[in-house]
Amino acid sequence: PLRFKHSERSVVFADLTRDEYVQVQEYMLKQKDLHISTSQLSKPSENFLFLIDLSLPKKAEVLAYLDKNGAPPRREATVVVFYGAKGYIKEYVVGPLPDPTDHRDVTMERYKKSELPITARTVTIGEYALLFQFFETEVMYKLGTLLKESFNVDKDKSLDMFEQMPRGLQSGDRKTWVSFFRDMSGLYIHPVGFEVLVNHKSLNASEWTVEGVYYNGRYFESVEQLKHQYDAGAVDKIRYKESPDYGSLKVRTKPLQTGPQLFYAQGKRYSVSKNHVVYLDWSFAFGLSSLTGMRVFDVKFRDERIIYELSVQEAMSVYGSVTPGMMLTKFLDSSIGIGRFAHELVRGVDCPHEATFVDTYRYIDAPAPIRFRNSICIFEHNMGQPLRRHFADFFHNSFGGMVNSALVFRTITAIGNYDYMWDFIFYQTGAVEAKVHATGYISSSYMVKDAQKHGHQVADKVLGNIHTHFINFKVDLDVQGVKNYFQTKDMNFVNVSVPWKPDRYAMVPQLVENQVKTEKDAALRYNSKIPRYLHIASNKTNRWGHQRSYRLQVYSFAGDHLPESEAEEAAMSWARYKVAITKHKDLEQTSSSLYSQNNMWEPAVDFSKYIEDNENIENEDLVAWVTAGFLHIPHAEDIPNTVTVGNGGGVLLRPHNYFDEDPSIHSADAVYFSPG
Amino acid sequence: PLRFKHSERSVVFADLTRDEYVQVQEYMLKQKDLHISTSQLSKPSENFLFLIDLSLPKKAEVLAYLDKNGAPPRREATVVVFYGAKGYIKEYVVGPLPDPTDHRDVTMERYKKSELPITARTVTIGEYALLFQFFETEVMYKLGTLLKESFNVDKDKSLDMFEQMPRGLQSGDRKTWVSFFRDMSGLYIHPVGFEVLVNHKSLNASEWTVEGVYYNGRYFESVEQLKHQYDAGAVDKIRYKESPDYGSLKVRTKPLQTGPQLFYAQGKRYSVSKNHVVYLDWSFAFGLSSLTGMRVFDVKFRDERIIYELSVQEAMSVYGSVTPGMMLTKFLDSSIGIGRFAHELVRGVDCPHEATFVDTYRYIDAPAPIRFRNSICIFEHNMGQPLRRHFADFFHNSFGGMVNSALVFRTITAIGNYDYMWDFIFYQTGAVEAKVHATGYISSSYMVKDAQKHGHQVADKVLGNIHTHFINFKVDLDVQGVKNYFQTKDMNFVNVSVPWKPDRYAMVPQLVENQVKTEKDAALRYNSKIPRYLHIASNKTNRWGHQRSYRLQVYSFAGDHLPESEAEEAAMSWARYKVAITKHKDLEQTSSSLYSQNNMWEPAVDFSKYIEDNENIENEDLVAWVTAGFLHIPHAEDIPNTVTVGNGGGVLLRPHNYFDEDPSIHSADAVYFSPG
Ligand SMILES: [Ca+2]
Ligand SMILES: [Ca+2]
Ligand SMILES: [Ca+2]
Ligand SMILES: [Ca+2]
Ligand SMILES: [Cu+2]
Ligand SMILES: [Cu+2]
Repeated sequence: PLRFKHSERSVVFADLTRDEYVQVQEYMLKQKDLHISTSQLSKPSENFLFLIDLSLPKKAEVLAYLDKNGAPPRREATVVVFYGAKGYIKEYVVGPLPDPTDHRDVTMERYKKSELPITARTVTIGEYALLFQFFETEVMYKLGTLLKESFNVDKDKSLDMFEQMPRGLQSGDRKTWVSFFRDMSGLYIHPVGFEVLVNHKSLNASEWTVEGVYYNGRYFESVEQLKHQYDAGAVDKIRYKESPDYGSLKVRTKPLQTGPQLFYAQGKRYSVSKNHVVYLDWSFAFGLSSLTGMRVFDVKFRDERIIYELSVQEAMSVYGSVTPGMMLTKFLDSSIGIGRFAHELVRGVDCPHEATFVDTYRYIDAPAPIRFRNSICIFEHNMGQPLRRHFADFFHNSFGGMVNSALVFRTITAIGNYDYMWDFIFYQTGAVEAKVHATGYISSSYMVKDAQKHGHQVADKVLGNIHTHFINFKVDLDVQGVKNYFQTKDMNFVNVSVPWKPDRYAMVPQLVENQVKTEKDAALRYNSKIPRYLHIASNKTNRWGHQRSYRLQVYSFAGDHLPESEAEEAAMSWARYKVAITKHKDLEQTSSSLYSQNNMWEPAVDFSKYIEDNENIENEDLVAWVTAGFLHIPHAEDIPNTVTVGNGGGVLLRPHNYFDEDPSIHSADAVYFSPG
Repeated sequence: PLRFKHSERSVVFADLTRDEYVQVQEYMLKQKDLHISTSQLSKPSENFLFLIDLSLPKKAEVLAYLDKNGAPPRREATVVVFYGAKGYIKEYVVGPLPDPTDHRDVTMERYKKSELPITARTVTIGEYALLFQFFETEVMYKLGTLLKESFNVDKDKSLDMFEQMPRGLQSGDRKTWVSFFRDMSGLYIHPVGFEVLVNHKSLNASEWTVEGVYYNGRYFESVEQLKHQYDAGAVDKIRYKESPDYGSLKVRTKPLQTGPQLFYAQGKRYSVSKNHVVYLDWSFAFGLSSLTGMRVFDVKFRDERIIYELSVQEAMSVYGSVTPGMMLTKFLDSSIGIGRFAHELVRGVDCPHEATFVDTYRYIDAPAPIRFRNSICIFEHNMGQPLRRHFADFFHNSFGGMVNSALVFRTITAIGNYDYMWDFIFYQTGAVEAKVHATGYISSSYMVKDAQKHGHQVADKVLGNIHTHFINFKVDLDVQGVKNYFQTKDMNFVNVSVPWKPDRYAMVPQLVENQVKTEKDAALRYNSKIPRYLHIASNKTNRWGHQRSYRLQVYSFAGDHLPESEAEEAAMSWARYKVAITKHKDLEQTSSSLYSQNNMWEPAVDFSKYIEDNENIENEDLVAWVTAGFLHIPHAEDIPNTVTVGNGGGVLLRPHNYFDEDPSIHSADAVYFSPG
């Protein structure tokens, strides 16, 4: 028996359907003047339809539709075309859906530039195919002897490649260090000590060049130079040695006895219909952006909207190494696509057996929309602890309490080596949690001189490199409407005279409250003293006269952020701030962008610019951008996989004087008894 | 099928049995020269046997017994006698058990004083009985009219009392502000605005006096003065008004549908025998001290000891208020007894239905040992997430992972208003977590002028007062033996020349490692910059040449610690430090003491003294003292009960180069598949 009904209107937030993707693709192909290709092996020199994704409707239109019976907003798609033939990138909005009839170039509107440089594009499967060919002919073919002696490469056995980013040192560069790994499971922890710098800036692959080679700790200007010196015996050779399969995840122990399982004795207490979930007092819409990943909208508790949008924005890592590939590595996953890699979730491992699984469809770097089976899971979990309880043995002998059962909304995105587990959790107290945990393989490098300045050895000749993880969430709370305030609360000790002994003084804790007026004051840097309580508040008050608010409680073990002196920092400026509050704008939809990774020096979106105009944030629609993360100093126990325990961060959104009392007191899970 | 056998030797850590308590009690009563009473209503002027508890054997003797087939250590009890007739407190060790034959005064050895001041004693049930009588005759009886008019008190209806601590302003004081509350469930959130200061220092209750009265925001020197002015109409009266039962935990909604439950399809994978637990690769002994609470010893993973002792030490809170009782309140729970209040756990709320429950026996402020049924629970929990997983779609298409099932060891202690949930969690990765969550009722005060400087209103005329929670854990890791080092690791950015473009510089993360030499350098203050990784390390190395270590990862939202300028701070000096490392000493068993609360100004144990001798901590037996906590600014949702979500802290003990690879790779829970 559900307490609230599903909302048909939640489809305004729904990802495009398979049919809609096809309709948009067909519409674009009909625009003959654009000369667009959708072949997966399109060359860089062609105009490639890279991405189709939902274009989120304007918030005001959505709210009018949801709350005031307004017209449904026009349903539209964002289309990204890599114009190889013209040397730039453009974004379009295509609509209305279904059956689109028009398109509009939104590049200027969204990025303040009429076009984006083609070098900023994501490497497509088409370009990868050419890169593999290039390596085959320009590197592997020329180094047969070395590859055989050092790595046992022959016609049956090859090396795997893993590339590092950014691709160069300045805007316009597209020079990538490619590192080679043994072709074994968990290749990322099997580096061999061989790396190649390829300049693939030209849209004509025949103009690509090798600009440097790294072998066993030494740099060479070209493949030929390495070959020549190697053949001349002037190079300290890596001698092939068979390597144990330590990256394997194969089961090494027979199952003995299954562990504890979850079951719903009386069925599910939540319901999923289309992209809408109803669970006890909660309801929300959901979606999965190919770029930024999972998100929920219109999150309501007891039919009151609390959150307009809660979404993953970016996952970033900065590495340290003495090896060339990883020395400058700074990954920005949304440029490859976070949601893109939300693959099938495994029952009993990724989510409990009883979970509800949802398929998603995506169109990114593909000739047609692709269905990802069971890529979202939703389940109610028994957290194994009381949500609240009290046992009274003084005066009133009684017990009251309830177990903590909460709804989990989850995707796991396996982007290359790492798997990020993303959870949004809905508690019966009215709290929502957004968190991430990392697992999967670490990135590693071949052990050379001074390598251990940057990490610990984790296998034979393998260094686990020190790196940071920074994750950004967008939290658009709407507390009793969109007009909100950002307030902080904390304590300080004040010296007061003791009233019944006035010559005595004592330090007594007081409450310190502050309302923050501007975006700059509300951008709370990680290396500054941050008030302990951060609130998005309404000027509406609860029964006791306090402003109704939600508190943001961030938990994070973040390392140091890249110094702002580095040009690449512009592409990750959101990570300066544990929490930053901005005035909501439809055009400030994301803190990062598809184009950030490959043009870090002049990124299409520099989050710090959202703050630079230092707008007033009193009685405005506010958005909180929250950064959590952790410093990762890899250790032997990261082999074969990093474990989730302790490797995560997130934010808890908790009602604070939002209600008049704890709403869980009305839960049907409550238990009470007293003697007699 | 258990992987490891139960250890019979774990009984060296076992709490006293019911018989042993009785034997010790009988032995003490036989010492006629001591004139000891065990009557629960013993008067303060009598010699009262307050406590019998296990006296932990010396670590060296235990290790010789466990590891080297040494003789079993002598089994002994600690006995605390409040010598009211003599005006001091003494501690004895009585042994051997069973059938003790001797006793030894250990007061000097343990506290560097031949006796402790009698004013430092915990208020016993005997003293409470006298206090209730005193209030009846000296306060209630005299204020009949006021109490009736203000609080509707008559022969059928009384007020409840809740006392504040410390009891006075300097050593030797025993002056307690007692606050009055409506006699309703959740009395702590029903303050009425009436408080009385009683001086009960004299061991003769007939000499007790009222030293002050507080009514509706005003101070009076005596009950008589209040009565006189009240009758004369010179006092702003509180008018009785019936109050809603907002503190009730009674169920307000009919159960609809039960939530998710845990079940063991193939039985339990752990076993509990006496005080010993075996679970997959883990084994440990456990106990429950009446004073400090739960603890585990001899924690082994794959038969290697990792932790000698992991124990709760203290729970402290500092409050702010304008009302006299709470203005100076600083609670130190171990002086009342944390373990003492580990009551029965409720199946399905406090612990899953399937959990194993263990009874405990205690002898504290009682005429005989008392059995506490089901006061510890032990269960394996499905954490609802993967412990690790990786999905490979590049090069090698496969999935490997395992669900996170872990063993939870739990007690919940309801000390007056608050319930602390204590968890020790044992993961299949070799990690152990110690954490605490708070629930139960907040402490509150009557709303008077300026009250909101110290908190928020949470009910009619009720202020939820700002306060801190600080929790201390003792973590005696023994990493490959007792000789260990304390090491820190962190990152910094270093400007390096880019090897393939030497005129370019870039900031690259490096690993910063440090070995800490002395106790003072290893006392890491909360308000200082603390390295991100803290390790207890052995000089034994793992396969890759790194020192085997366990990392302490503390998570905490602690408020500000009481300034050291305050005399009371000496009793809670452990809370200065997020982590402090000391050289292990049998005589530095606890960071706090039974005698701290009632003599905060000259506490029997001042933790900072453990550090003051600044011993060398290299290649020594090290103990980590970990403080976690949170700042609590109460809000409407704390009514009726604080919820556990977000209100906690703890420490994760994680292997870091301790193993050669993640031990969970050998778990029978692992899952793997690849296509075809
Ligand atoms: Ca702005
Ligand atoms: Ca908002
Ligand atoms: Ca010392
Ligand atoms: Ca130790
Ligand atoms: Cu990592
Ligand atoms: Cu609290």
